[in-house]
Amino acid sequence: MKNTEDIKVLLGQRVRTLRMEAGLSQESFADKCGLDRTYISGIERGTRNPTLEVLYTLATALHIELTSLFIFNEPG
Amino acid sequence: MKNTEDIKVLLGQRVRTLRMEAGLSQESFADKCGLDRTYISGIERGTRNPTLEVLYTLATALHIELTSLFIFNEPG
Repeated sequence: MKNTEDIKVLLGQRVRTLRMEAGLSQESFADKCGLDRTYISGIERGTRNPTLEVLYTLATALHIELTSLFIFNEPG
Repeated sequence: MKNTEDIKVLLGQRVRTLRMEAGLSQESFADKCGLDRTYISGIERGTRNPTLEVLYTLATALHIELTSLFIFNEPG
């Protein structure tokens, strides 16, 4: 089982991958989300603990379903 | 598109459904999560905005993947 620290790192890696696949810089992604670039950076580094509302905002800005944020490329 | 208020309500309904399917009272579910029963109640009513760590704790206590928390029975 993953711990709660791991989950922030996994989510951060996933967000970074999806953002880069969308061809967005941290700054342009932050603008689309209405969040600060440093906050996006913190999420991607796994140091932030984003709320449900923020997670939904990220997914919406990436034009994906919320579930897709949590598909990690590693064994559960 | 759903707004961020809706997403809290949808998540709350999903948590309640999964908790009841698991045969857990709010109190026993809260105990498994290490959270207060009133906090679980707030999540289920859609008034709380749980963090990623809390969402992961809920999924772990329900023995489900994090993605399963976000499968809502309604059109996107």
